[in-house]
Amino acid sequence: MTKNGADLLAQTLAENGIDTCFANPGTTEMHLVAAFGRETRMTTHLCVFEGVATGAADGFARMSGRPAVTLLHLGPGLANGMANLHNAKKAATPVVNIVGEHATHHLGLQAPLTADIEGMAATVSESVITATSADTIGADTAELLSGLTGPGAGVGTLVVPNDVAWTTTETSAPRMQHQPKPLHDPAMVGPAARALQAGPGSLMLLGAAFITKRSAELAHAIEQKTGCLVLTEAAVARMERGGGIPPLKRLPFHVDPATDLLKQVRVAVLAGARAPVAFFAYPGRASELLPDETEILALSPPLGELEVALEALAAELGARPVKYTSADVPNTDPQAPIAPDTLGAAVARTLPDRAIVVDESITNGGFLFTLCGEGKSHDWLNNRGGSIGYSMPVSIGAAVACPDRKVLCITGDGSALYTLQSLWTMARSKLDVTVVILANRSYRILANEMSKIGAGTPTDTTTPLLSLENPQLDWVQLANGHGVDAERVSNSAELEAALQRAFSRGGPRLIEAVM
Amino acid sequence: MTKNGADLLAQTLAENGIDTCFANPGTTEMHLVAAFGRETRMTTHLCVFEGVATGAADGFARMSGRPAVTLLHLGPGLANGMANLHNAKKAATPVVNIVGEHATHHLGLQAPLTADIEGMAATVSESVITATSADTIGADTAELLSGLTGPGAGVGTLVVPNDVAWTTTETSAPRMQHQPKPLHDPAMVGPAARALQAGPGSLMLLGAAFITKRSAELAHAIEQKTGCLVLTEAAVARMERGGGIPPLKRLPFHVDPATDLLKQVRVAVLAGARAPVAFFAYPGRASELLPDETEILALSPPLGELEVALEALAAELGARPVKYTSADVPNTDPQAPIAPDTLGAAVARTLPDRAIVVDESITNGGFLFTLCGEGKSHDWLNNRGGSIGYSMPVSIGAAVACPDRKVLCITGDGSALYTLQSLWTMARSKLDVTVVILANRSYRILANEMSKIGAGTPTDTTTPLLSLENPQLDWVQLANGHGVDAERVSNSAELEAALQRAFSRGGPRLIEAVM
Repeated sequence: MTKNGADLLAQTLAENGIDTCFANPGTTEMHLVAAFGRETRMTTHLCVFEGVATGAADGFARMSGRPAVTLLHLGPGLANGMANLHNAKKAATPVVNIVGEHATHHLGLQAPLTADIEGMAATVSESVITATSADTIGADTAELLSGLTGPGAGVGTLVVPNDVAWTTTETSAPRMQHQPKPLHDPAMVGPAARALQAGPGSLMLLGAAFITKRSAELAHAIEQKTGCLVLTEAAVARMERGGGIPPLKRLPFHVDPATDLLKQVRVAVLAGARAPVAFFAYPGRASELLPDETEILALSPPLGELEVALEALAAELGARPVKYTSADVPNTDPQAPIAPDTLGAAVARTLPDRAIVVDESITNGGFLFTLCGEGKSHDWLNNRGGSIGYSMPVSIGAAVACPDRKVLCITGDGSALYTLQSLWTMARSKLDVTVVILANRSYRILANEMSKIGAGTPTDTTTPLLSLENPQLDWVQLANGHGVDAERVSNSAELEAALQRAFSRGGPRLIEAVM
Repeated sequence: MTKNGADLLAQTLAENGIDTCFANPGTTEMHLVAAFGRETRMTTHLCVFEGVATGAADGFARMSGRPAVTLLHLGPGLANGMANLHNAKKAATPVVNIVGEHATHHLGLQAPLTADIEGMAATVSESVITATSADTIGADTAELLSGLTGPGAGVGTLVVPNDVAWTTTETSAPRMQHQPKPLHDPAMVGPAARALQAGPGSLMLLGAAFITKRSAELAHAIEQKTGCLVLTEAAVARMERGGGIPPLKRLPFHVDPATDLLKQVRVAVLAGARAPVAFFAYPGRASELLPDETEILALSPPLGELEVALEALAAELGARPVKYTSADVPNTDPQAPIAPDTLGAAVARTLPDRAIVVDESITNGGFLFTLCGEGKSHDWLNNRGGSIGYSMPVSIGAAVACPDRKVLCITGDGSALYTLQSLWTMARSKLDVTVVILANRSYRILANEMSKIGAGTPTDTTTPLLSLENPQLDWVQLANGHGVDAERVSNSAELEAALQRAFSRGGPRLIEAVM
């Protein structure tokens, strides 16, 4: 049969190993839908809001190591997906972001949906390519994919005018060119080793798109050998943890504990990390978290390849990984309310081997992270972009990438509302995701932030803007309404039992944990 | 007490008659929240997704005639609000879109939430101003407001760096300068009148931000006098209808009936409208809907002032409004399934006087629009931007603007999902909105569009991307979960009874109408 530009796009993706699409299409994407339907190597998942599709593509790539494709409808569809594309970009996650566009001859007519798609896409993409003909869309696609493999990893947007999709072509699908990941600087290994040998007062800050088990073991060995401080950035896109992997400490999210922890640092080795900065600026507080006089050595570029650099550094130092014996998870009172400590203990005790934790616990996450580090082997995914509503979509992608693993999504209620339509796709695609909603019924972080930023304390007129009370959300009904089974728990023992049920029965399943 | 840049912003808004804010703030907006809390003339409504806030601001301005303010959190918050800003822009609705930004000194540090806010905003705004100091933010605000009153009506974005908000100032709040709306061309009145006197073969196409009762009466008088074809654009931002106002016909949404209706047109008078174009391009079909040889006369500019132009045209023609006697709404079988005709009849029979209808019925809306035109007096709001998920947010704004009127929101289930968080704000702010969800459990428009655009018919692999079955959404639970009472109906009589109950008890209330 004859093929068209849409078929060539689908074939080019499939030829280059890209087989998963998270879609929310409209009229201008119907030829792409038809072509993806004909390309038997491609699997599509319908998302009923674009932010779900873009976050799912992020989660898929983090866990599979290869990009997924989105399929979005014109400028407004792209706009709805941009917050989670922002998060993917900040995590250097490769995403092939496909946006349908009006046919070329329709663009100047100011039709209702006409918008500046390239302008929008540029704000969240490393590269934006608009296809200009059916014959060349394969080459455009291969070029976009090539750019996502190397130092430009992140979001690549391909804009597909409808006439490019529907025009026939006989061109064959081309192959992408793999580009090398940014490497560490071998000349920095010696100086970095000498700096860390200063012990106290020296810091090694880790930040990669993926901190592997081996990287964690090497970092721990370097810490043991030198006595330096080892931290990861406050949010790491993906980290292997648990199951005897030495736990890494994170730089605190809040500016005061972070500056306090770093105040003795005289020399900092950056391994895949940037010099640390505060999440927000606060009056009278520093935005740059290291003391002014700190000497900074860049061992490897931000979000680049980390393991090779750490191997070289450990070899230089003669640091060998030593066995780590996990600590016990403390017992908690079964009747205790659900709070950061009991939450952390319940999850650490029940988390199945090889689980994937997608963490958007925000104000409640400290113990959770620490205690799970003593539990079974798992991957931990954090949001590097700061745009909330990331975790349920990312969980979808992780579950699609790893159908034989359990995914645990832990999210505040305020965050979960941004992309609650995720629940429907979890049910539609029968994904083994357990969602824990931490129902504190407020944007709790904001009451604290308000005074921290010098805007006073909440008053009668401002408290309503920080609260999710009145009316109270009922997450059991919200989940059921989307086709997902759910239950509500309100103490430590109930939470632990609910987690056990969810992990043994399989997902999707939602647990509303009232705090 | 001392005041800061945030206070000056709030005071400038209030001094210029802007008193309503739809907010989804974060840390960088805490000083704005505090200032809005201190400004006693300002009322704030919390929205738990930004697209709700921006759509609400659109609906508020359409019904009140003055802009509301949004309050969004940095680039990702803006991104989430952009689809409904796109719709507002296309409707020329004035919106004061306020976006918080990092403090100036924090911007270069690549903090997680740093993004190109101005670049994003430019794609959906008529103007973008970034405040540079606490002393000048009042002048910036007044300039932005001034720009929204005249030919540049639409979205004005004010970016507020956090340090600008928190720095003290003694500057007083300035006043805006009202600019005139774009006027009609008096020299075109005579030629337009002569063109319409040709009767059949001549078209008057109306398109304004607001087609008033008087405009409808004048257009009807001109149609009666000349025998010309009078149509409105396919979507009008706001139209007064019913209660004996002569009903205006709309240009059909679909390209084939539209070109068929227009094929005899030899001369077209554009009154507040653009030359009509197809919503999408289709292979082998025209994008421009008027025949090639049509002579076009522009009486008044797109979305400008319409009534004065029509008064002049009617005077030139000696056309006087004549009384219109409403037709009867046809009876329907109480047991009939809910379908376009029975839906239209049920709404037309029950719609209370002075109701506001926010219409996102898409594939099901033809009879609804026509039959309501024979019912009681009401306003009809349509989406000019084509980005779905517009109607529930716009209903929020309409209800806040007109607390003594009933708001009826009619939306497809697929559309409603994009901004279902609207339901929570309806409950929180106790708004008298009745939402009818047309539950056809599919993106029904797309199956039709797929073949129309030449992409074949849905297959085993593509049908799932067009269907909302499996799992079925339960809108009663989704509404209850957000704190809104709801019921499900599945025939004509049940729908009519549910509408009567909702209108008599007051909202918010949701009716899931299974089709």
